[in-house]
Amino acid sequence: MAQPRAVVVVTGSELVRGARQDLNGPFLARELLELGLEPAEIVVVGDGPEELERVIAEALEADIAVFSGGLGPTHDDRTVELIAKAAGRALRIVPELESDIEAISRAVAERLGRPYADFSHGVRKQATLPDGAVALGLAGTAPALLLEHDGRVVVALPGPPGELRRLWPNVVAHETFRRMVERTRRRTHRVLRFFGPSESAVARALAEAGGEGDGAEVTVCARDLEIHVDLFVEPGGEPRAGALQAELLERFGHQLFAEDERPVEELVLDLCRGRGLTLATAESCTGGLVGARLTSVVGASDVYAGGVVAYANAVKAAQLGVPEELLARHGAVSAEVAESMAQRVRVALGVDVSVSVTGVAGPAGGTPEKPVGLVFLHAASADGELGQRLELPGDREAIRARAAVTALHLLRRLLTRSGTDTRD
Amino acid sequence: MAQPRAVVVVTGSELVRGARQDLNGPFLARELLELGLEPAEIVVVGDGPEELERVIAEALEADIAVFSGGLGPTHDDRTVELIAKAAGRALRIVPELESDIEAISRAVAERLGRPYADFSHGVRKQATLPDGAVALGLAGTAPALLLEHDGRVVVALPGPPGELRRLWPNVVAHETFRRMVERTRRRTHRVLRFFGPSESAVARALAEAGGEGDGAEVTVCARDLEIHVDLFVEPGGEPRAGALQAELLERFGHQLFAEDERPVEELVLDLCRGRGLTLATAESCTGGLVGARLTSVVGASDVYAGGVVAYANAVKAAQLGVPEELLARHGAVSAEVAESMAQRVRVALGVDVSVSVTGVAGPAGGTPEKPVGLVFLHAASADGELGQRLELPGDREAIRARAAVTALHLLRRLLTRSGTDTRD
Repeated sequence: MAQPRAVVVVTGSELVRGARQDLNGPFLARELLELGLEPAEIVVVGDGPEELERVIAEALEADIAVFSGGLGPTHDDRTVELIAKAAGRALRIVPELESDIEAISRAVAERLGRPYADFSHGVRKQATLPDGAVALGLAGTAPALLLEHDGRVVVALPGPPGELRRLWPNVVAHETFRRMVERTRRRTHRVLRFFGPSESAVARALAEAGGEGDGAEVTVCARDLEIHVDLFVEPGGEPRAGALQAELLERFGHQLFAEDERPVEELVLDLCRGRGLTLATAESCTGGLVGARLTSVVGASDVYAGGVVAYANAVKAAQLGVPEELLARHGAVSAEVAESMAQRVRVALGVDVSVSVTGVAGPAGGTPEKPVGLVFLHAASADGELGQRLELPGDREAIRARAAVTALHLLRRLLTRSGTDTRD
Repeated sequence: MAQPRAVVVVTGSELVRGARQDLNGPFLARELLELGLEPAEIVVVGDGPEELERVIAEALEADIAVFSGGLGPTHDDRTVELIAKAAGRALRIVPELESDIEAISRAVAERLGRPYADFSHGVRKQATLPDGAVALGLAGTAPALLLEHDGRVVVALPGPPGELRRLWPNVVAHETFRRMVERTRRRTHRVLRFFGPSESAVARALAEAGGEGDGAEVTVCARDLEIHVDLFVEPGGEPRAGALQAELLERFGHQLFAEDERPVEELVLDLCRGRGLTLATAESCTGGLVGARLTSVVGASDVYAGGVVAYANAVKAAQLGVPEELLARHGAVSAEVAESMAQRVRVALGVDVSVSVTGVAGPAGGTPEKPVGLVFLHAASADGELGQRLELPGDREAIRARAAVTALHLLRRLLTRSGTDTRD
């Protein structure tokens, strides 16, 4: 049987107008790819009924059509009604779904001190599904749905990325969906995560090792100085995949930091947790980004104690105790101040390990000696310290994001190096 | 004459696999919208010839089709050949283009120490355009092209975002493109930003005021408890747009916080700056998100001094001086601790205004009295204070993002309220 054809449709006028970056299309594409279903296309379309109807009808010709958005309570949330129309199904209220959504809406109404009547129309709308569709859980009051139609599978998920991600496993676990996925040739997925090499060096290495083909597909993706390599291997693709992987490890093995999907903040927390170490941060130009990344991980609190956002020099001096004299002599953006920040936050917060960031995020504030993009990092522990000087390209947002990720990698290196290794 | 229909097609297997975020689609959408041409859809499609041929043929039915990617020198760069096929045009080498590309390629060959013969096939390929197409400048060796076809306009631009952005003005300046744009009716854009109302209440108000139509289009977008309303008004659409706007202001005027695109962190900084006030943060469950948002704004440093990420109770006590007794009696997630955090960070960092966040982000750590999503905020200044208790829905990521944005709005309310207003 042929490989099923999958299509992703993301709806939302704010997306088709470029006012917001679509996160759902790439997420669903990666998830489908993981299941061996490379999407044929990702379509972003607005809420206008004409274009939406055309796109939905076309998507229903694919073996698997996954929709995001348009499940809300208002008249311009049209996904469900247009799926029903394209599939030639009647719409009907699902009573048990209606009572679930009603219960949620009554609680919301009460909390907001508003009459339930404000919500009842929306409740009926959201409890209405195409005949034969099953609800796969609720995001707020919006049900995800799955419809088997003509041997094909149609899935609709809510637009808010967090909710879509939460409900997606319900889709993957559903028997109809699983049956479709089992039609795909069995592919395996290998993950290689590097920190340091350039994207073009990695691409060149892959090309010189024979490139894609013979059952091995590769994607290379640069993300804030990390290079994410994903190898998808079909049955029989082992020799080529092995050759590609061997070449990458030969050239960049010393820069490999993970062979799974865990982000670096999770690796850092796991490394600390494994040794019973606690952690703190002292941030200037990143303004809290490193702390925010660390605390995005569930269970961060048993490792991460907190930190100081020392944006102004006065805070570096008063909160952290960085000597005024050091600030005056070397400037806030210096290896010396980074070192002092890391050492002092470690003592002040009484933790085992710390990291600091100080730099010029721009666009203003650069000088010939200290240009925009110059960042100093320092990591400190009882076993030793590591300092790093960066000259980062990019705009303010890119510089801050790259400084934050490099600070996390500096911690990772400090926590994984042998005791006597003092290279930076 | 009807509004021209525009379609954006972005090609690239790494994009349709979700390995890289597409930046070109949103960029082109915003540019087209600015010209009054709302795109009907943005399609992301891989490099495989079958799907690509279908998508390109379909796009050529739009009045304006803009393509990104697939202009390179290798066989899997197929955009030009498939545009020619869909438009029924022959392909021909453009001699002047060939000599331009050859000159660039010879220089590259020399720099790399490789024979020009390695490049000549690619040069001929890149100098080949559909009959009647014009080249609009080169990105490296890839020409952007514009083709007028059947009263429609087809544009192809290189995939690297920097190159696409550099060549886009050549498209906008071209006479054929300008003629098409002049067909668009002139639209104006009004921005209304609310904090507080539900998306469905706003949608209902709009529906009751007559909804879209008669030259007025509306998008309503919920973003972490903010409701962003954008009104697009065509000539003659004033009465309807005015009615919609009046209804929203009548019902939700007290929750309006901006009539421009400035995010709340920028409004807070501007409010402080206007009165010469400095600002600090004390964050627990948000782990630095509020600080990171404030410092994402260029020039934050003249207002924002910094903050304390007091994730562990020990840090709340030691760094901020929150009394141990208060923590023991009320728990870290309490109005009392939020108040103490805000007051103490204000004194400790010597600033005029402060805000604090403490809550249960989940997924673990909730109790019947203090469930996941319970968050306390407090804002303090010399003129007064505001506290707020939240029960936020959503997962860890949503709760943290919503707590951070609500903290910024609490600051905004503290800074804009009249001196005697003590409502929370």
